[in-house]
Amino acid sequence: MAKKKSKKTSTSLYGNYNDMLKSRFESLKIQPGDHIVIKYGEKNIDGNLMAQTEMGDPSSIVVKLDNGYNIGIKVDETVHIIKKAGSVDLEKFQIRVPKQKKGLPGITLLGTGGTIASRIDYKTGGVVMAMEPEEIFASLPELFEEVSFDDVKSLFTLASEDLASPQWKVMAKHSADAINDGTRGVVLLHGTDTMGYSSAALSFMLPDVPVPVVFTGAQRSSDRGSFDGAFNLISAARIAANADIASVMVCMHGSSNDDYCNISRGTKVRKMHTTRRDAFLTINDTPMMNIDYQGIMNELNNDLPRRKKGNVDPKLEYDEKVALIKIYPGIAPDLMDYYIDKGYHGLIIEGTGLGHVPSFPPKEDNRDFLHAVKRAVDEGIFVGMTSQCLNGRVHPYVYRSTRITYQSGVIYLEDMLPETALIKLGWTLANYEDKSVAKIMSSNLAGEISSRSYYQEYMRNEI
Amino acid sequence: MAKKKSKKTSTSLYGNYNDMLKSRFESLKIQPGDHIVIKYGEKNIDGNLMAQTEMGDPSSIVVKLDNGYNIGIKVDETVHIIKKAGSVDLEKFQIRVPKQKKGLPGITLLGTGGTIASRIDYKTGGVVMAMEPEEIFASLPELFEEVSFDDVKSLFTLASEDLASPQWKVMAKHSADAINDGTRGVVLLHGTDTMGYSSAALSFMLPDVPVPVVFTGAQRSSDRGSFDGAFNLISAARIAANADIASVMVCMHGSSNDDYCNISRGTKVRKMHTTRRDAFLTINDTPMMNIDYQGIMNELNNDLPRRKKGNVDPKLEYDEKVALIKIYPGIAPDLMDYYIDKGYHGLIIEGTGLGHVPSFPPKEDNRDFLHAVKRAVDEGIFVGMTSQCLNGRVHPYVYRSTRITYQSGVIYLEDMLPETALIKLGWTLANYEDKSVAKIMSSNLAGEISSRSYYQEYMRNEI
Repeated sequence: MAKKKSKKTSTSLYGNYNDMLKSRFESLKIQPGDHIVIKYGEKNIDGNLMAQTEMGDPSSIVVKLDNGYNIGIKVDETVHIIKKAGSVDLEKFQIRVPKQKKGLPGITLLGTGGTIASRIDYKTGGVVMAMEPEEIFASLPELFEEVSFDDVKSLFTLASEDLASPQWKVMAKHSADAINDGTRGVVLLHGTDTMGYSSAALSFMLPDVPVPVVFTGAQRSSDRGSFDGAFNLISAARIAANADIASVMVCMHGSSNDDYCNISRGTKVRKMHTTRRDAFLTINDTPMMNIDYQGIMNELNNDLPRRKKGNVDPKLEYDEKVALIKIYPGIAPDLMDYYIDKGYHGLIIEGTGLGHVPSFPPKEDNRDFLHAVKRAVDEGIFVGMTSQCLNGRVHPYVYRSTRITYQSGVIYLEDMLPETALIKLGWTLANYEDKSVAKIMSSNLAGEISSRSYYQEYMRNEI
Repeated sequence: MAKKKSKKTSTSLYGNYNDMLKSRFESLKIQPGDHIVIKYGEKNIDGNLMAQTEMGDPSSIVVKLDNGYNIGIKVDETVHIIKKAGSVDLEKFQIRVPKQKKGLPGITLLGTGGTIASRIDYKTGGVVMAMEPEEIFASLPELFEEVSFDDVKSLFTLASEDLASPQWKVMAKHSADAINDGTRGVVLLHGTDTMGYSSAALSFMLPDVPVPVVFTGAQRSSDRGSFDGAFNLISAARIAANADIASVMVCMHGSSNDDYCNISRGTKVRKMHTTRRDAFLTINDTPMMNIDYQGIMNELNNDLPRRKKGNVDPKLEYDEKVALIKIYPGIAPDLMDYYIDKGYHGLIIEGTGLGHVPSFPPKEDNRDFLHAVKRAVDEGIFVGMTSQCLNGRVHPYVYRSTRITYQSGVIYLEDMLPETALIKLGWTLANYEDKSVAKIMSSNLAGEISSRSYYQEYMRNEI
């Protein structure tokens, strides 16, 4: 197991509060983490004091409410601050990592950050993403009864919105190395917001992967009663260790309860709710399998790639000169000029319905978006079409306007998710010759294109 | 009732086919509309011959398959074309509009185009959008037993991707005039792809509307067995004539069958599937009501605005200098410069999760997207935050990066749909002073912001 790094300690107990507030806290013997009541006028706010972050307002008190959210309260001399009985027992945050047992299947755990690897730091305030993977284990001793860890690494501690192709390459490289060293499976801890983009990236960067590579994360932080990360991680570890499936996948709650997780293909999954624990839905496919709280796996898809011997040969290159354009009524054709002028190599359009862009000029300049798209194609830019409906398939033949768009050289990408299409395009442009790009984009490499439509699965992944 | 315009006839029976194909058709006595079989090698294609459009390949035969889709088949001398028994009975397309009965509630029908107002023209080929609203009535004599028509107008015959603010103004103006003339309700026939954008636009352009204004359309064209437009139109007409509800709404299939339609608020509805008849889901709310095939209405929402006396005072202005930006990993900060340089007045960000943009620079130029957003705000551009999860609520306080984004002046728009936020912003910027924009955008005007979250309704609108 990798050596646990020492954690950084806060340089200041109270963080960025101003001197007035610091002296009031000190005189009331209130420390960050203490339960306080703030009275102003007829209002009471009740929660745990947080230290102020460096970006916060020094004259506002940050309080963590019981529902898990932080609020800031601008205060002056007239506001009463009252310390309530009890303070947070910092002892319970002490880390005791269980010992590994012999003879258990070995998996590899890679941390990237995100809510699953974050917690409220009662010394420094706010949700922090500095938790080492081992710290998560402290609350999951049962995991050590089922699996052992070939390696545990924290690759980064970044929020998911800050992960992009440089990080995908690192994740894919470390996963490939672990697989080629013989690990049974890889679990990646990841922020949920862009998990679908990263799982798509690794789906292409690890072609024909021989073992499970499972992304998991948490929608609620570990200090909340509704923390979902523990069940997600246990389920992901069981899949990595035991499932007869070889794919890059996402393992997240299948319902609002801790009763089962869905295992979605990395190319066919999307976060469809900001906060629900069952936010991740498989789109245009069935989930590959689900796994219940006892670890029982149910295969839901007849077309599962199986575990096999052999190494993975990662293809890590990625062309960042790609963009996703969501169409809306009145979108200005100039936007295409921007991408042409900036030297982009590929564009994914999130069109309306079956794959439309405006062809009638609603603007005074008498230029329509369709002609701007054609101009991009004529400049040698790959343009792929997906749908903002997300569910269903684009189709160039039903309407005259889609036929014209198709004849302009836009490639219709079947039932591929727009986000997956973007990532696949960045990867394809960097790994294949120009003349092969349209063919690769139109071929199913990692489940991103389904040969048939799964009508019954429309927005309803539950059992 | 408005006078029916004469239809244009095709200048050529076969359209754009080359002379070789025209002469082969003539020698085989095959006309567009006839059922043919094309044999090449071991393949057979079976369907109705379509005339070739002016954009089509003159050497490819276009055949309408039984499933309703058109395909093009490149042919040469070796391909066999066989005429099958029977040809299309053009008589059945003759229009016989029923007569209106007296004493029935009067509604107003406005056509804008779209699939509901389109059909396969067996003389000219392809799906055409030239059907007058009265032509739809020909197949719906039962409608004339329940409602009368104060007015029937075809405002445009445009595909929905070609409708934008100039057309919204016309729709809203005609709706307001009809309402102020005393109609019981308005039904708008509209293409489905951008119906949610248009329904949002009219929700704001017709403030505090006193009667139902109901958008409806079709996912399948009227020549297909699965045509959904008839049931949608009957249901919409019943809502317009009889429902005790005053709102701009969308009436579309609630299931794959013709058993009921859902009535969604115009600001809370989204097309979530490219082809399904039940593609329209109410997002972050319950449907207002549903209506079954017998016309029985079930109210599903406790907070319905009721019919009332009085006129509507339309607010038709719209600022086209607004844009919707969907965030993805690695999105270039330069994109914000484009909008700043082009003089945009407002931007809606479709952020990740609870409302994030990248704050960590993955690019070599060492500029991050968050700072680019702040630059736009500093230039006086309104920037609003929504989520690409679509379901759920954005929240600026949970994470450090959202707090910083919020402190930069970005307004978090609760559970408003990104598309609705875009339309509301264009409308707000044109109708209110700059200093009021943030307040108006944060206030619930037409159901676009819910005060509480509807957890149970997540992607599951069925009964």
